[in-house]
Amino acid sequence: MRNILLKIIILRFNFEIMFRNYTCGELRLSNLNQEVILAGWVQSSRNLGGMTFIDLRDRYGITQIVFNMEDDENLCLAARKLGREFVIQVKGTVLERSSKNLNRPTGEIEIKAKELNLLNASETPPFTIEDESDGGDELRMKYRYLDIRRNPVKEKLLFRHQVSLETRKYLSDLHFTEIETPYLIKSTPEGARDFVVPSRMNQGQFYALPQSPQTFKQILMVAGMDRYFQIVRCFRDEDLRADRQPEFTQIDCEMAFVNREDILSTFEGLMKHLFKTILKIDLPDFQRMSYDDAMHHYGSDKPDLRFDMKIQYLNSAMQNKGFVVFDSAELVAGIVCKAAAEKYTNKDINDLTEWVKRPQMGAKGLVYIKYNLDGTIKSSIGKFFSDEALQQLAIEYGIEKGDMFLILAGDKDKTIKQCGELRLEMAKRLDIISKDVFSAFWVVDFPLLEWDDDAQRFFAMHHPFTSPLPQDLEKLKSNDREILKSIRAAAYDMVINGAEVGGGSIRIHDRALQSQNFKLLGFSEKEAEEQFGFLLGAFEYGAPPHGGIAFGLDRVCAIMQGSTSIRDYIAFPKNNQGRDTMIDSPSTLDQKQMTELGIKIS
Amino acid sequence: MRNILLKIIILRFNFEIMFRNYTCGELRLSNLNQEVILAGWVQSSRNLGGMTFIDLRDRYGITQIVFNMEDDENLCLAARKLGREFVIQVKGTVLERSSKNLNRPTGEIEIKAKELNLLNASETPPFTIEDESDGGDELRMKYRYLDIRRNPVKEKLLFRHQVSLETRKYLSDLHFTEIETPYLIKSTPEGARDFVVPSRMNQGQFYALPQSPQTFKQILMVAGMDRYFQIVRCFRDEDLRADRQPEFTQIDCEMAFVNREDILSTFEGLMKHLFKTILKIDLPDFQRMSYDDAMHHYGSDKPDLRFDMKIQYLNSAMQNKGFVVFDSAELVAGIVCKAAAEKYTNKDINDLTEWVKRPQMGAKGLVYIKYNLDGTIKSSIGKFFSDEALQQLAIEYGIEKGDMFLILAGDKDKTIKQCGELRLEMAKRLDIISKDVFSAFWVVDFPLLEWDDDAQRFFAMHHPFTSPLPQDLEKLKSNDREILKSIRAAAYDMVINGAEVGGGSIRIHDRALQSQNFKLLGFSEKEAEEQFGFLLGAFEYGAPPHGGIAFGLDRVCAIMQGSTSIRDYIAFPKNNQGRDTMIDSPSTLDQKQMTELGIKIS
Repeated sequence: MRNILLKIIILRFNFEIMFRNYTCGELRLSNLNQEVILAGWVQSSRNLGGMTFIDLRDRYGITQIVFNMEDDENLCLAARKLGREFVIQVKGTVLERSSKNLNRPTGEIEIKAKELNLLNASETPPFTIEDESDGGDELRMKYRYLDIRRNPVKEKLLFRHQVSLETRKYLSDLHFTEIETPYLIKSTPEGARDFVVPSRMNQGQFYALPQSPQTFKQILMVAGMDRYFQIVRCFRDEDLRADRQPEFTQIDCEMAFVNREDILSTFEGLMKHLFKTILKIDLPDFQRMSYDDAMHHYGSDKPDLRFDMKIQYLNSAMQNKGFVVFDSAELVAGIVCKAAAEKYTNKDINDLTEWVKRPQMGAKGLVYIKYNLDGTIKSSIGKFFSDEALQQLAIEYGIEKGDMFLILAGDKDKTIKQCGELRLEMAKRLDIISKDVFSAFWVVDFPLLEWDDDAQRFFAMHHPFTSPLPQDLEKLKSNDREILKSIRAAAYDMVINGAEVGGGSIRIHDRALQSQNFKLLGFSEKEAEEQFGFLLGAFEYGAPPHGGIAFGLDRVCAIMQGSTSIRDYIAFPKNNQGRDTMIDSPSTLDQKQMTELGIKIS
Repeated sequence: MRNILLKIIILRFNFEIMFRNYTCGELRLSNLNQEVILAGWVQSSRNLGGMTFIDLRDRYGITQIVFNMEDDENLCLAARKLGREFVIQVKGTVLERSSKNLNRPTGEIEIKAKELNLLNASETPPFTIEDESDGGDELRMKYRYLDIRRNPVKEKLLFRHQVSLETRKYLSDLHFTEIETPYLIKSTPEGARDFVVPSRMNQGQFYALPQSPQTFKQILMVAGMDRYFQIVRCFRDEDLRADRQPEFTQIDCEMAFVNREDILSTFEGLMKHLFKTILKIDLPDFQRMSYDDAMHHYGSDKPDLRFDMKIQYLNSAMQNKGFVVFDSAELVAGIVCKAAAEKYTNKDINDLTEWVKRPQMGAKGLVYIKYNLDGTIKSSIGKFFSDEALQQLAIEYGIEKGDMFLILAGDKDKTIKQCGELRLEMAKRLDIISKDVFSAFWVVDFPLLEWDDDAQRFFAMHHPFTSPLPQDLEKLKSNDREILKSIRAAAYDMVINGAEVGGGSIRIHDRALQSQNFKLLGFSEKEAEEQFGFLLGAFEYGAPPHGGIAFGLDRVCAIMQGSTSIRDYIAFPKNNQGRDTMIDSPSTLDQKQMTELGIKIS
């Protein structure tokens, strides 16, 4: 037996042979009686005494191979020796299967083997190569090459390729030019932390890896390139939360001589193109919603509009009725959960109360009012509000029998955000989000500035190159913090199913306005010049009006497929400690490298 | 006057307007009498008293705008105030020009201006924005955004986009999947120097930027992805010679279950596709030439076959005739320059002799034999060789009247390479290389190993993952240096017009053979495990036979356009000191960043 394997193993070192003339995904009844050569991995094998069946797998599918003791005993015995994930080549004839597997595109045929060649053996894999694997996250990351063999991971990588390709087609057809910008650039303290690269030729100096090609794409507009895009890696040295990667890919775009409408319609078009060509879904035209409206109605700048459940404002209805929690609050607000009164138990309410009190949410408590189907009312504030008062509330807010009102109170901004979180959570708990619906729209008119209490200064909400809305330009001259807070930016986000898939803005293209904006953000003139002098300089040589947008490629992929995690769209992601456990990186350098670079570990 | 400008300057801050409805490159006679809006840069303006003409430029072309004192004096006066590179918007009517400029696609029409809006002013640019600029290299790099406005640079960036796009189309149609591999990987001392990135979260440890995604693409083959490509940035921290960049872009490809022929034909197909779709040129089928033949006939592993001029071997013809320089040499060899005898003067010969003696070439001298048209012979070795002997040489080597023989002598390997260099140089000096011809072919069967005298060890000629040819496998077991040198690799280069545009190999996919190869290259088992343990590990879980290739994208672009420099195909190249002079990078970090990263300058 061993001899047979040894004899055929020699094929490994012969690369003049033709390894296959079909893939494991393409043979059909129309190929009946053809002589074919397939190659792939042994997915499974079944030994039924006289016959041995092997499921042979490659990227394209699975084909059943059959070996018969009567026809060729040696071959059949050799086949029985093959373990899972062995790499083999099979020559044989396409036959019709007697028991067809119609769940599989190749399930009507099988290959009767005439020749079997072992291309490589395999150790027993540490987890099963099946759609549902028994491997934990850590194990699958360490053996990522086995994980990628699994359909769910493989399909995501193929999907991502399609999204990239269709993005490039759409934009290129609109005369966008893909231009590569450098990866070895310059560190700027503003924004997130940079990854840096010591320069050997300029000792003591460092490059930085780009957090985005923002300044370069603006420079390209000044350079007259007009319509730029790039599918480009970006880097951020942040403490990693779940679903954040130190390196990630952006669809980065910029246009000159355009107004906001030009940009929104161009990239609404991109998203429609992706959904249409890849998913065969026609997205309707995108609505526009102001940031203020989004916050007011949904408590979020990226609301999930697959369900309604708007925030209800209750100050006038519920304050000054003797309930101190409400009376002392800046805001009393809540959401109405349709038809939830009867199915939501006391235990559910208690769970939810704990949930809103978690530090991440920070609510002090939760008030509920159940409007039961039989007309009775049950609430946690019966002591302060009569049934009549609560019935009156129902009329005022259009609440029906069977509905449940959930109410929070406290500081205005916080309570609105808490209501937004609660809204999302209840939609999940009540399972009212339809999986096949896509809600895509634009949030516009973001605030230009965000006040940071710790740093006692303003930060740019989008980035320091974002233009204010023309009608708010005058406010820039104010010293009043509230007036400055109210300045709106020509910034916009594309939101799909409650996720921000892309965002951008019209940029400042005027040197004086850019300088003024830097000043507002606490840059000294010297700092602005050191960090962005080249851009300010470029603005002096005929900078056109311009604006742009960037999409998170992995996020777009995940949203399109209704997936909650971006990690599997990345072939080789890093873990939460920023490590690649497969290649065991980062790692130490040898002393020679450190010396050449002129750096030491401190 | 100033008032007019001030009034119209306000448009800069209004981005609800439509900036243009045509580009400066698209209006024709068929648009006659249309009302249009154009926007762009003032290329030039001519004031002819009653009329002012402005050439308005954008990425797509130039359109003439005409202002008439009689029609609108204020507008015409405002137009006269516009300087070069001012950004303006013009509304007007398309008219037929009286004096047409047929060198320009828009040259039959002009726009009679009705409205002029200044979108941005410009300082006087530091060099002219013309096809032939008066700016030196350094100035143009510092103001790269102005340089890119020039047609020759802009066109190269547009060309590069086309090459990328068509590459992606061709490969995607063949079921190649573009998969992004990580940029934050692991440093390996083998090969060129790595750029490294200190890890803040894993202090004292470093990532490295990839010199190529070699190991990742092999891992993807083990992962079953079958046909991979990626247009990807690569990084090498080398001392920069002219035309080398610390970051450069590769078309990186890998295939599984293929033999060498499959790969060569697939990527010959890619190059034919690029030439066909972009240049409308049908490349003929590529010849294959062995490395040995290339070195023997052309003294180079990337010969320029647009001209013949093969190396002639002269040991038997010219040794032992009493000329000690030839007699003591391991090799006497030369090239025949057709029809060069009469036009090549003594001064030319002296120049050439100096040229071959430069340290880069290192020849000791140069022998010439001129076969004049009148039948006489003039040579630098008349003392040792009679005219009859030289005539005999001419017969033997097919030399005709008017030809010139140039001969070098010395150490065999060096002399062959010198002949190869001399061949290229003479083709240039004699201007016999046709510009419109493309010679594309494969060089195959490279040596597996290169002996390094300084390090006293073998290095991989391609890289350590390259497979030997099957028929040379046995030689791997030898301890004889000459036998090891003679091992051929399954490696191949695509050569076009004397440049290596791409190269690759069939890889080792067998763990034992890979370990043996590492050992041959001087890796200890521990080193091999530390650096490539993940790849060796992957080979134990069913690695398929595979191979691949990588092309230098900028090199491909330059060759296709007959350009000698890759630099202008890169939007933001670095100079020879690795600096980006536009953004002034690399630069120092602030102490806070250094502390967070746990590194110091030593």
